[in-house]
Amino acid sequence: MPVFEVVLVEPKFGGNIGAVARVMMNFDVSSLVVVAPPVSLNGDECRDRAVHAQEILDSARVVQSFQEGIGGSDFVVGTSSIVSGSDRRHLRKAMSLEDFSGKIYDVKGCVSLVFGREDYGLLNQEIEQCDILLQIPTSPVYSSLNLSHAVGIVLYSLFCQRGTRKPVRRVGRLERDILYHHISLLLNTIRYPGYKKEKTVMMIKRILGRAMVSQLEYHTLMGVLRGTLEKLHQQQDDTQEKQ
Amino acid sequence: MPVFEVVLVEPKFGGNIGAVARVMMNFDVSSLVVVAPPVSLNGDECRDRAVHAQEILDSARVVQSFQEGIGGSDFVVGTSSIVSGSDRRHLRKAMSLEDFSGKIYDVKGCVSLVFGREDYGLLNQEIEQCDILLQIPTSPVYSSLNLSHAVGIVLYSLFCQRGTRKPVRRVGRLERDILYHHISLLLNTIRYPGYKKEKTVMMIKRILGRAMVSQLEYHTLMGVLRGTLEKLHQQQDDTQEKQ
Repeated sequence: MPVFEVVLVEPKFGGNIGAVARVMMNFDVSSLVVVAPPVSLNGDECRDRAVHAQEILDSARVVQSFQEGIGGSDFVVGTSSIVSGSDRRHLRKAMSLEDFSGKIYDVKGCVSLVFGREDYGLLNQEIEQCDILLQIPTSPVYSSLNLSHAVGIVLYSLFCQRGTRKPVRRVGRLERDILYHHISLLLNTIRYPGYKKEKTVMMIKRILGRAMVSQLEYHTLMGVLRGTLEKLHQQQDDTQEKQ
Repeated sequence: MPVFEVVLVEPKFGGNIGAVARVMMNFDVSSLVVVAPPVSLNGDECRDRAVHAQEILDSARVVQSFQEGIGGSDFVVGTSSIVSGSDRRHLRKAMSLEDFSGKIYDVKGCVSLVFGREDYGLLNQEIEQCDILLQIPTSPVYSSLNLSHAVGIVLYSLFCQRGTRKPVRRVGRLERDILYHHISLLLNTIRYPGYKKEKTVMMIKRILGRAMVSQLEYHTLMGVLRGTLEKLHQQQDDTQEKQ
């Protein structure tokens, strides 16, 4: 079973941080990371709103950059209310919360649940670093949830699925990076048009992110990719030799 | 489809009432009833926390008794964190939120969702008047949710069942078969071991099945596969020519 960590990126209001700590305790999640908060976690509003969850604030990790915030994580989950319904915007193509909660328990290690700023949410360059983007369905009339409500709803959804799933060994960060690297190599080798390449890699990342590939599946996919690359290179060598 | 109404019984803090209004708007519920609040709905904290949901506060019905609060309702739903697991304590025998959200849409008329005081919740004589008691599953270590979190989670759960999700064009049987066929061709071309082939095709099928690939994703994947196969065949031809 994964360990969940809540990562708040530049939260403005101490009250929100406190309310997040409380709702984390309501749903048995204890690890909080706060990236570059402009306020102290020891402010009155923060402490008051946390009520019985003072320990979560005491042991929270305050870091200065997004990178540090997700460092050491095995699976990074961004959240956003601005998602794309369009098939063409892979970066902001999101998985629904229900779907996510049903699958994430098969992942091992630390799963970072990343929540953006109260006003701007997450920046594109931050979302790029997430393995998947999660959407909490809301009214199109007013989709912006209060930060602690967003956290509460995600943790509730995860809490409901706890202990209902059979474990499967999913791949970790390292394996996923190797896989993406090989896909990128393949595109280079087949001279895939440069202007489409980045988008295509992002799309495949999102597909494999959604599918939450297992160890065994990973090794099989890598076998196919390596086999394909070897064949391509070997044939290239043969062609050159005969010339 | 029923119309949902949120009923807050003697909420102490204006900030909570405002936060409830906001999350109601996030989930398309507009009717708010407040029973005997000790604070005004026009206080700064209440108004600030409501953000864009001022209208919900403006049109809220403030009443002096629980009876008035649920008057005219077709179905009264109490919420409580103190529920009973025992079969004998029918009063506090609760329905799970998931179960409830799946079924309540069959009810017609006004459904009152009743939330108790921040400290005491609902009294027994109030619960007696509810048609059902609803439980939001939380950690036994700290089960008391913030009032607006409780409302938010219930409304989120109801919203998910409303069937508002935008349809995305998924690929059909034909496209999936073409995709699998090309994966099979690729495995043949790279002389993937025969004894593993069938299993590998099935595994990739499962991965892509889980990911529920869209039309656009399908076309991109096919582009990569066709490009790879062309390159492989072209190199093979080159090699043969030079021999």
